[in-house]
Amino acid sequence: MSVLIKNGHVIYGESFEVVKADVLIEGNRIVKVAKEINEPADTVIDAKGKVVSPGFINLHTHSPMGLFRGLADDLPLMDWLQNHIWPREAKLTREYTKAGAYLGALEMIKTGTTTFLDMYFFMDAVAEVVAESGLRGYLSYGMIDLGDPEKTEKEIKEALRTMEFIEKLNSERVHFVFGPHAPYTCSIALLKEVRKLANEHGKLITIHVSETMAEIGQITERYGKSPVVLLDEVGFLGNDVIIAHGVWLDSRDIQILARNGVTVAHNPASNMKLASGVMPLQRLLNAGVNVGLGTDGAASNNNLDMLDEMKLAALLHKVHNLDPTVADAKTVFRMATLNGAKALRLKAGVIKEGYLADIVIVDFNRPHLRPINNVISHLVYSASGNDVETTIVDGKILMLDREVLTLDEEKILDEAEKTIEKLA
Amino acid sequence: MSVLIKNGHVIYGESFEVVKADVLIEGNRIVKVAKEINEPADTVIDAKGKVVSPGFINLHTHSPMGLFRGLADDLPLMDWLQNHIWPREAKLTREYTKAGAYLGALEMIKTGTTTFLDMYFFMDAVAEVVAESGLRGYLSYGMIDLGDPEKTEKEIKEALRTMEFIEKLNSERVHFVFGPHAPYTCSIALLKEVRKLANEHGKLITIHVSETMAEIGQITERYGKSPVVLLDEVGFLGNDVIIAHGVWLDSRDIQILARNGVTVAHNPASNMKLASGVMPLQRLLNAGVNVGLGTDGAASNNNLDMLDEMKLAALLHKVHNLDPTVADAKTVFRMATLNGAKALRLKAGVIKEGYLADIVIVDFNRPHLRPINNVISHLVYSASGNDVETTIVDGKILMLDREVLTLDEEKILDEAEKTIEKLA
Repeated sequence: MSVLIKNGHVIYGESFEVVKADVLIEGNRIVKVAKEINEPADTVIDAKGKVVSPGFINLHTHSPMGLFRGLADDLPLMDWLQNHIWPREAKLTREYTKAGAYLGALEMIKTGTTTFLDMYFFMDAVAEVVAESGLRGYLSYGMIDLGDPEKTEKEIKEALRTMEFIEKLNSERVHFVFGPHAPYTCSIALLKEVRKLANEHGKLITIHVSETMAEIGQITERYGKSPVVLLDEVGFLGNDVIIAHGVWLDSRDIQILARNGVTVAHNPASNMKLASGVMPLQRLLNAGVNVGLGTDGAASNNNLDMLDEMKLAALLHKVHNLDPTVADAKTVFRMATLNGAKALRLKAGVIKEGYLADIVIVDFNRPHLRPINNVISHLVYSASGNDVETTIVDGKILMLDREVLTLDEEKILDEAEKTIEKLA
Repeated sequence: MSVLIKNGHVIYGESFEVVKADVLIEGNRIVKVAKEINEPADTVIDAKGKVVSPGFINLHTHSPMGLFRGLADDLPLMDWLQNHIWPREAKLTREYTKAGAYLGALEMIKTGTTTFLDMYFFMDAVAEVVAESGLRGYLSYGMIDLGDPEKTEKEIKEALRTMEFIEKLNSERVHFVFGPHAPYTCSIALLKEVRKLANEHGKLITIHVSETMAEIGQITERYGKSPVVLLDEVGFLGNDVIIAHGVWLDSRDIQILARNGVTVAHNPASNMKLASGVMPLQRLLNAGVNVGLGTDGAASNNNLDMLDEMKLAALLHKVHNLDPTVADAKTVFRMATLNGAKALRLKAGVIKEGYLADIVIVDFNRPHLRPINNVISHLVYSASGNDVETTIVDGKILMLDREVLTLDEEKILDEAEKTIEKLA
């Protein structure tokens, strides 16, 4: 299988330089980026007036939560969780979760996400959806033991079961990740066991850390230290760990994250909508911490649109610091692409020879993207996910001219609607 | 001319209740909202699975500035203005401005804005574009005299010339508004003259007020009082005044705005992008001040998407106050519709019998808008302007199924591109 993308504005290389060029894909790799490639290809796409961009990497989400989109907004976090989300999640079955995962996968393909890092339940069902959809998925079962040793064992067992299920799929696109939920919902024993298993199996770990002030209070009361210090002291941190949120981090926390090579997945929409706070982006970047971008679940966003998310990230940190020069367009674009790939140890997030062919084509023949004064700026500040026209993952076209080729869109929307009625 | 919209989820009345109903438009008014209207109509639109919403009212923009979109981002305000925007604006001609106005009008129609309040130069050219596009425009020539009496006279003259030009168009959709730029760029003499002329001609006034801390410093140094106190003391304020921004307002300022019935046009994207600050939305609403929503110009946003703007408004105030209950979806939706209409003294912003037929139809058959758990929430938190499918202004269909019927889209995009090359 080969794909040739002609005449586009290509965002090239690690410095995201915009060049007019053609892009040749063979198998799952980008093999050539040059002016006027005339080699034959199975599929030729004309990208005139369009932008050829690295696909977006959503570094923190709960993909099936689209089911709960808009069910409970404008509420305090604990009211939202305890009275709206958790009661519905308690009714979730494998079948319902799968309906949500389909909805999430469809939304991601339609808005230009090519890879995502997920945490939820029934992750074997989510893995099946990822395999079918053509997306690249890093999937963690969210473990919560609340200090109960019986639960610890059960959660580890479910994680390992999920890992085995995913390994049997034998897909280069579907990966297992360990996902202890958070320091305030997991025991030290669970965290230590996860660290051991991750080393043993060579898997990544993702975990919610320092999302709210309430969490900091709880952990400080229980352990007498911050969540990051706690995780460091029990030997949990490493360059295979991706922490979600990292809103309430002090200077010591930031030093620890930098020293351990930990990645932070920033979720501006969710942090703003739930009023969790503003993460110290500038201080993290200055300390050399790798920061990626995520949407969090669609129930606290309320979409999975990485283009939306880039704008929010840029704007939030400018106004918070009263400094318009921070979180510039290229920095934020890098967070949404290359930094995510780095965290996942994935040769992607960049359009360049030898990299994985995870590419999106964005239609710039639209008034809000003209004149084409600055491609990266337009993607960050002016575009939305709806402007993505074609999505390619692993060299395979998942969406062409807004038509999703791997999933049945109408059926998925119907099923989502039916499923939420059952969960009412 | 009559239009019948069938089977939609209709956002009805001042309380924005969502009902399944049909909407009948005759001439430029909504005449009936009911289940199963079977009267004949010139055009029948099937809105099954779609949402019928009041059109959005952009209460502060500079519509031709789309030309400068992305030309200079991530810069301090004064660097942005002095080194990038002003040098280009100095080269603007009537023809160039008109090309920008076309681009702005096209973008607004495509993203569901039905009415806008504008401030710029060559507003006679903008008026021609508004007349042709079918939009509803409130147009002000931005007056700046910098204390020079000769300039004062010239600016007043140009405003009055614009007013006469617009009145001659004799359109119910195109209105003149007085637009002194700001207290720091206009003399007291100019402001007083504008007040007198607005009374005389029964016109509205719009002005930038308290946008940046620098402005507060400048005005305090020059006059020994805040911009709002100054405007109050010279008798400038009234319920026909719409101030843009209102970021740096103290309690006394807010009381003065409330007492005078002044409307504030909130521009969250611009205030965030330029790092101007966070306006005191809650305190203004609590004081009973009418607050509308605007995008500001596309050079500091960088689009004219009111759906984007709603999300930014809601999220910004939640995180700023560390309170997820503030700026709830309905409050923000009201700002973007009914509050804008109130400020402009327009019987619009609501779908109800007798109101102007300024309506948009949003396609909810998309993964990011499903399940349809909450229509208003989805519009505020999940949708973007690209989801608008049909735009109706004054009973006339300007866009049907994403095709703009009143303007030549391709020509406008080409002209915009050529124009910015000339301004380089």
